[in-house]
Amino acid sequence: MTPYKSEIPIRFAHCDPAGIVFYPRYIEFFNNLVEDWCLENDIPYAEVRGGRGMGLPTVHLEVDFLAPSSMGDVLSAELTLHAAGVSSLSIDIVLRGEDGADRVRGNLVLAMMDAGTRRAVPIPEDVRAKLGV
Amino acid sequence: MTPYKSEIPIRFAHCDPAGIVFYPRYIEFFNNLVEDWCLENDIPYAEVRGGRGMGLPTVHLEVDFLAPSSMGDVLSAELTLHAAGVSSLSIDIVLRGEDGADRVRGNLVLAMMDAGTRRAVPIPEDVRAKLGV
Amino acid sequence: MTPYKSEIPIRFAHCDPAGIVFYPRYIEFFNNLVEDWCLENDIPYAEVRGGRGMGLPTVHLEVDFLAPSSMGDVLSAELTLHAAGVSSLSIDIVLRGEDGADRVRGNLVLAMMDAGTRRAVPIPEDVRAKLGV
Amino acid sequence: MTPYKSEIPIRFAHCDPAGIVFYPRYIEFFNNLVEDWCLENDIPYAEVRGGRGMGLPTVHLEVDFLAPSSMGDVLSAELTLHAAGVSSLSIDIVLRGEDGADRVRGNLVLAMMDAGTRRAVPIPEDVRAKLGV
Repeated sequence: MTPYKSEIPIRFAHCDPAGIVFYPRYIEFFNNLVEDWCLENDIPYAEVRGGRGMGLPTVHLEVDFLAPSSMGDVLSAELTLHAAGVSSLSIDIVLRGEDGADRVRGNLVLAMMDAGTRRAVPIPEDVRAKLGV
Repeated sequence: MTPYKSEIPIRFAHCDPAGIVFYPRYIEFFNNLVEDWCLENDIPYAEVRGGRGMGLPTVHLEVDFLAPSSMGDVLSAELTLHAAGVSSLSIDIVLRGEDGADRVRGNLVLAMMDAGTRRAVPIPEDVRAKLGV
Repeated sequence: MTPYKSEIPIRFAHCDPAGIVFYPRYIEFFNNLVEDWCLENDIPYAEVRGGRGMGLPTVHLEVDFLAPSSMGDVLSAELTLHAAGVSSLSIDIVLRGEDGADRVRGNLVLAMMDAGTRRAVPIPEDVRAKLGV
Repeated sequence: MTPYKSEIPIRFAHCDPAGIVFYPRYIEFFNNLVEDWCLENDIPYAEVRGGRGMGLPTVHLEVDFLAPSSMGDVLSAELTLHAAGVSSLSIDIVLRGEDGADRVRGNLVLAMMDAGTRRAVPIPEDVRAKLGV
């Protein structure tokens, strides 16, 4: 599967009193990237995030913040499906500055859950097919 | 140093369409806990986060989301200074449900920076003294 | 009905690159105040915001931002039920600085809705009773 | 001056437990629209929001929330400069659904401030020229 790429313009709303991106905002960017990647691959994101009696919560998150970003920067984002298990997806995300240097590197693990029992369930076949896993 | 403890009431504003806390909100909780812990220890948080020509960005973040939380839950938060280096602090945070079970476990690494050069600088002596490190 | 009062400590997370509260954050404070006021009056907030087949969206908002607030300020909030109609509540909110001067003055109109039809419905009797209207 | 137009895709991150946009998020959309409109007109937004010793806070806000929006909706936004005073700008914003019906209608008043004295100052000539006022 080819990596998903997009751009994130850094806004006033994202920045803190030190003039750089408030780091919880990066985690919101990560969530948005996963959403856009799903939509790009025709995966019914709203359904897997709460419909069909399923949920797709993030169960693990690891991030290195290598360099700060400021208002006006446009970050290049790249999302790669690192690995897929029976009920989990491991996703790598890199955000780069305009010079190509990595600014933020993260890994997310998402787990397909039954929304009622809150237990892991297999990723549905139609979603697997669309992800090519 | 004794752990810092506080409570986090889960609000409507924190929750997503699946009815559980939107996970980037937990990272904002982490930032708030570090702020409160600093204030509790009489560390001039505003100064270290942007004043005195210094900054205290988060450089690494690792989180396990073990169980979801919903509106009305009151989480017990516990922050522990895990380790202190010359210019960095490693902080452990646990959020627990009302039954005492861990819901979220995280580790943050903060680095004391020169705000101009964006390079690591030693943690000031007055801050070290207040942290007992 | 006596006004509902609480305090809002201004945090790093609330502030923008100009060092003052990012104004959309005040609107989140308003939502939190309405939630706390409901809970204080034993109104099942989660239910009226989405349960029982009902919703309580904000349909009108008007705010004067009179003076800025910065990290470390503790604002005094006062919420007053201005008027109650068959299916709407008009709520006044004032946020004051430590000198007692008004910083933010707002009015919110909330409407009780049927979540399915998205049409206004009468405020349930048990909620009216608790609000004394 | 012609209205500024753009689109706002409604995301998971914007929505609340009732499945609709959490209304403080609309106010963040408004701030983003003003930022994009400034950039489109080559107005140095970062400077007027904190540089040059100036600030451009919102001093008044009025919003009608006419109909809710949900994840997957793409709103059409239209921003119009309603009026310009010596040191203030009155801006109208409309967000419409895909059927063209108004969902949110707002008016913002922004005031050009001296960041030090927190007093209104005239809008700089270069900014006036770019806005055509």
